[in-house]
Amino acid sequence: MGTTQLESVPEPKYWHLKTVLSEALDAEFSVGEILPNERDLAARFGVARATLRQALEQLELEGRLQRRRGVGTTVAPPRMGVAVGAHGQAWPGEADDTWQPLDCMPAAPPAAVAGQLGTGREEPVHTVRRSRMSHGQPVAAELLYVPAASVPDLSAIDVPSGAARARAVLRELQRLPLQRQENAVELGSARADDAKELDRLPGAPVLVVTTRYLAADRTAALSVATYRADTCRLTFGDSGDVEIHHDPENQAS
Amino acid sequence: MGTTQLESVPEPKYWHLKTVLSEALDAEFSVGEILPNERDLAARFGVARATLRQALEQLELEGRLQRRRGVGTTVAPPRMGVAVGAHGQAWPGEADDTWQPLDCMPAAPPAAVAGQLGTGREEPVHTVRRSRMSHGQPVAAELLYVPAASVPDLSAIDVPSGAARARAVLRELQRLPLQRQENAVELGSARADDAKELDRLPGAPVLVVTTRYLAADRTAALSVATYRADTCRLTFGDSGDVEIHHDPENQAS
Repeated sequence: MGTTQLESVPEPKYWHLKTVLSEALDAEFSVGEILPNERDLAARFGVARATLRQALEQLELEGRLQRRRGVGTTVAPPRMGVAVGAHGQAWPGEADDTWQPLDCMPAAPPAAVAGQLGTGREEPVHTVRRSRMSHGQPVAAELLYVPAASVPDLSAIDVPSGAARARAVLRELQRLPLQRQENAVELGSARADDAKELDRLPGAPVLVVTTRYLAADRTAALSVATYRADTCRLTFGDSGDVEIHHDPENQAS
Repeated sequence: MGTTQLESVPEPKYWHLKTVLSEALDAEFSVGEILPNERDLAARFGVARATLRQALEQLELEGRLQRRRGVGTTVAPPRMGVAVGAHGQAWPGEADDTWQPLDCMPAAPPAAVAGQLGTGREEPVHTVRRSRMSHGQPVAAELLYVPAASVPDLSAIDVPSGAARARAVLRELQRLPLQRQENAVELGSARADDAKELDRLPGAPVLVVTTRYLAADRTAALSVATYRADTCRLTFGDSGDVEIHHDPENQAS
């Protein structure tokens, strides 16, 4: 009893080290604590620096460790459950949306986005920038692309820019009857501007959530949201309070 | 017109190179084509090898490139849209489930899983192993944990092991009235056994989807599915045929 009977597979050295390190983290370290330096750790576990580094990288991918410039490697808190599309079908900014509008600019979207929206090449669309906080930390940055055709009554004069402009675009968008929304999640790397907002280095692994909002059988708006992969677990489901593995600790925001 | 007016942020050198490389991939290379070696590429773009390598890593994270041992770096096909929880609420193996049962063993699950299932430490649960193919390629490997209490009428004698055993467990599970299911997605690294099944190296970045199946207000089963992050885009939504960015090319399976 107690031993798994699944077929055993030979594992590489750093993988075994990762398991041992993971147990040491549980037993000897608390969240936020700084790990000894690589040389000391390699000596303690009797492995080469390269092996150690591979194991640390794995633990970072899995969200167990955080590497921060000027600080070192620290033990990460459990990932936060962040609800995505959990409240069923709603326009951005509706109901209990937790995103904060930052600004809104006219800009030609990337070709792939323009293709989805059915807008012309180089045709500017309202580009709303929003950010999402959770437990006092930035967890996601979003660009929401809204073609002019989706907000025909938007006045260009009343609020020309800034967060107020963003809110005006969202308000106009919400007048359309929303048919449904579709989400997709994939791995990506943080663009420099998103990385800055998320307090990460450019190129850090992120979870990219693309949401297509459909009205009258066409894509009325497209959101591309970049979530920190190190601190977030994205939850999808009926209830908004889905926390699959562990609850995040209570943190002052 | 045509220039974005979003605030410009200084980008690191490899980031600029990544953009240039990405355009070169579009213009000069086709899917599956092998890239020139690093030395030649670095010379062509007038950058240091280290800068080139960073840019290649980014493109790999974003699914544009694949690095394969003994082959080199090739241009990746567009990611496949793989529907997750798209058919609403259904037990594993029901309706148009695309997973293939492989085997079923009694095994003590990891502590986090046991905590979710409310089973005792070291208590073995039915551990069903399934795999999922898409377009002729393995895209995901799953361990589905089913406590004995969820399948009380399962006979130990009729089908003691293998895929038939797995199907018997799923059949028994489906007798329970499913209340709802909840999904969570997070970044992980491939375990050695999953990596082998997915044709990846251990530690490769993967998207881990945890699905909790609830019946009578308790977790009747828990699935931990590991998707290839390089080839998959996970889709969530009303319809099963959600493909947000691009359709995968028709591939013979």
